[in-house]
Amino acid sequence: MTRAPALELISFRLCPFVQRAAILLTHKQVKHTVTFIDPVTPPPWFREISPRGKVPVLRVNGEASVFEPAIIAEFIDEVTPPPLMPEDPILRAHNRGWIAYAPHVLMPLKDFTTVATGPDCFHAVQDFQTRLKLLEGALGDGPYFNGRAFSLVDAAYAPLFVRLDYFHAMLGELAPAMRFPKVAAWHQVLCDLASVQKTIGYDFSQCMNQLVAQRQGYLATLLPRGVTAAGQRQHS
Amino acid sequence: MTRAPALELISFRLCPFVQRAAILLTHKQVKHTVTFIDPVTPPPWFREISPRGKVPVLRVNGEASVFEPAIIAEFIDEVTPPPLMPEDPILRAHNRGWIAYAPHVLMPLKDFTTVATGPDCFHAVQDFQTRLKLLEGALGDGPYFNGRAFSLVDAAYAPLFVRLDYFHAMLGELAPAMRFPKVAAWHQVLCDLASVQKTIGYDFSQCMNQLVAQRQGYLATLLPRGVTAAGQRQHS
Repeated sequence: MTRAPALELISFRLCPFVQRAAILLTHKQVKHTVTFIDPVTPPPWFREISPRGKVPVLRVNGEASVFEPAIIAEFIDEVTPPPLMPEDPILRAHNRGWIAYAPHVLMPLKDFTTVATGPDCFHAVQDFQTRLKLLEGALGDGPYFNGRAFSLVDAAYAPLFVRLDYFHAMLGELAPAMRFPKVAAWHQVLCDLASVQKTIGYDFSQCMNQLVAQRQGYLATLLPRGVTAAGQRQHS
Repeated sequence: MTRAPALELISFRLCPFVQRAAILLTHKQVKHTVTFIDPVTPPPWFREISPRGKVPVLRVNGEASVFEPAIIAEFIDEVTPPPLMPEDPILRAHNRGWIAYAPHVLMPLKDFTTVATGPDCFHAVQDFQTRLKLLEGALGDGPYFNGRAFSLVDAAYAPLFVRLDYFHAMLGELAPAMRFPKVAAWHQVLCDLASVQKTIGYDFSQCMNQLVAQRQGYLATLLPRGVTAAGQRQHS
């Protein structure tokens, strides 16, 4: 491509996978726009660009759409120099493998919000720990996954750590990441990045609170008084 | 890499994802070995190279292991010239998207073998049709997915069509692929390739028959008399 393409990310507000792409674009200082939709009742134009209803979507120059978080990230990396994916094919395959693992750590976070009791929540955290343990074994001396250079693996896991910060504030001692020193150090490094902070949004905790309230699980009982699924504090 | 790496594919006999890699290596005339294991009781050495028990694995120079079918295929393509992935980033992302779709068409084939009744089997075929329909819309004039050049998308779908041939022989009129002319033409082209035929193996139908017998669904009632889960024809 001879000229920088116009890039528009489309997904719902709390989607960790659209945040991955946003972190990458912000890190690479690439101009882009983000459009949030309601995935339950998407606008008609969304059905046209995403026949299977998938999010996130990356719309390129208002036309071609790219799907799947890992594919979107590699596409962004390929069209915006300098490349962040390692040059060595083995290392690249290794990085892709751990990027493919990211959803296996991210998706169980949903259980934290849906389980009905404290003990169930404790078990969900334990299950999550076993997944983090595998990640601990893959990490080196840091600060980033590949050492000194920020890569697509870092962008893939940063949204996980952003969400863990929220759950940490809710669950306190149950907070899962802290037990693994390499994961914990990586967590801190990624959450301290300006490119990560910029993509969180000032209303992130508020939106998460609303989501937790909507799911009506055990976690909803720990919410500040007055938080409702509609997201408004009721006056008492 | 300055010298061709030693490549060993590891999976179970009927795995469509290891066949994808084998097709690619055969198409590119790259020397490789294939090791079949029993995924239910894998050998101890397998646990060492695949801590999560995942198949297929590509072992490189007896050491580094590559996981995930799409990652294995791209790795193979990157280390064995000439590259089959398109050069244009948008076309590459488009190809990757349809490669990511392949498991959504492949996995429902399992339902054909597990459902208990003829009507259930009919419904499984109908569900499968809706997935093929999306594929029909993605195909051009052929003969391959990208036109004249064989690509990783072709390698990803060929194992599907090999299995459809088997089900066609079993189900006759229910055979799903034929209703979509572009899919049907692509099916024929891919199954006629020497690289595809070489990776099927003379005992493919026999192994499939055993699998169908093991699953004890409706399809098992259509097997030739005397086929058992142990794979031996009983003398009558």
